[in-house]
Amino acid sequence: MWIPRRFKHCPSCGAPVEYRIPADDNRERATCTVCATVHYENPINVVGTLPVWGDQVLLCKRAIEPRYGLWTLPAGFLELGETAAEGAARETDEEAGAQIELQDLYCLMNVVKVGQVHLFYRARLLSTTFNPGPESLEVALFHEHEVPWDELAFRTVRETLQHFFDDRRTGRPFTLHCGDVV
Amino acid sequence: MWIPRRFKHCPSCGAPVEYRIPADDNRERATCTVCATVHYENPINVVGTLPVWGDQVLLCKRAIEPRYGLWTLPAGFLELGETAAEGAARETDEEAGAQIELQDLYCLMNVVKVGQVHLFYRARLLSTTFNPGPESLEVALFHEHEVPWDELAFRTVRETLQHFFDDRRTGRPFTLHCGDVV
Repeated sequence: MWIPRRFKHCPSCGAPVEYRIPADDNRERATCTVCATVHYENPINVVGTLPVWGDQVLLCKRAIEPRYGLWTLPAGFLELGETAAEGAARETDEEAGAQIELQDLYCLMNVVKVGQVHLFYRARLLSTTFNPGPESLEVALFHEHEVPWDELAFRTVRETLQHFFDDRRTGRPFTLHCGDVV
Repeated sequence: MWIPRRFKHCPSCGAPVEYRIPADDNRERATCTVCATVHYENPINVVGTLPVWGDQVLLCKRAIEPRYGLWTLPAGFLELGETAAEGAARETDEEAGAQIELQDLYCLMNVVKVGQVHLFYRARLLSTTFNPGPESLEVALFHEHEVPWDELAFRTVRETLQHFFDDRRTGRPFTLHCGDVV
């Protein structure tokens, strides 16, 4: 499989790097040809929420690439200095301007081909007043039959929504769903 | 709070970077002073298992820094090209040489001060034959009263073990625990 190679130069000293297997390792790592520093590349987390109002879910229409104009749950990259739950709440504020009460972690999905782990929390909307941020063209509530299934931005968003409506229909308690998107 | 600044030079072209807030952003990012590429830094995942044999749990005595000589659950950094569950199983193999059946995600803990999200899966040991890897001095099974509570390597390991023995004592089903380590 394709593994991204982010480094051409050493972030510490600026000299060229080579991808080599360090002595105590079993994978190629970006290794500085001058200062010998080894630089690791690892998957990162995308964190977001599934905001619910009665039978409706909140979606944001993307104002940015990738997937400009398609619909998504509010989500974005987890930042240094915050917990996953804090990041999910921050993204919901930034992208939807929605007031929420954050609930439990609901979906953990690996998106191996892009080196991401997506974490979605359920959230209870506290009002229907939204304030789309610069990354959203529009924010709206959808009943299940209104969800624009063919205009969703990401597979993990589709799967999270499917789990939610399935769980809701069957009356199961909302417990964690784990999965992989290939 | 302290945010690590990993980049002094641009990994793309090697020129010096400056930490600046990009036009469409609200945080300082490593920005190349020559090619203008923006380099992001995000939390990464540590993945591992809680391997169980009857009433006993498996721990590894660390043969590497940090925390040389202290006891830990088998765990390590999630790598590109694998799912969180695959990474947890790989670490269990590499550090303990233990045969397991991987079970559900059990603990998700944010360790904000070091920019990490730790994920521990429960695992059922299939045998008591272990094969400590180069990162482990020793691998052993412990009943609750035998766990070296004062010689555990990491707070997230302690909390995962505590949740497990608490859940086991009360007979609760093993569901996900989320928490933050400060």
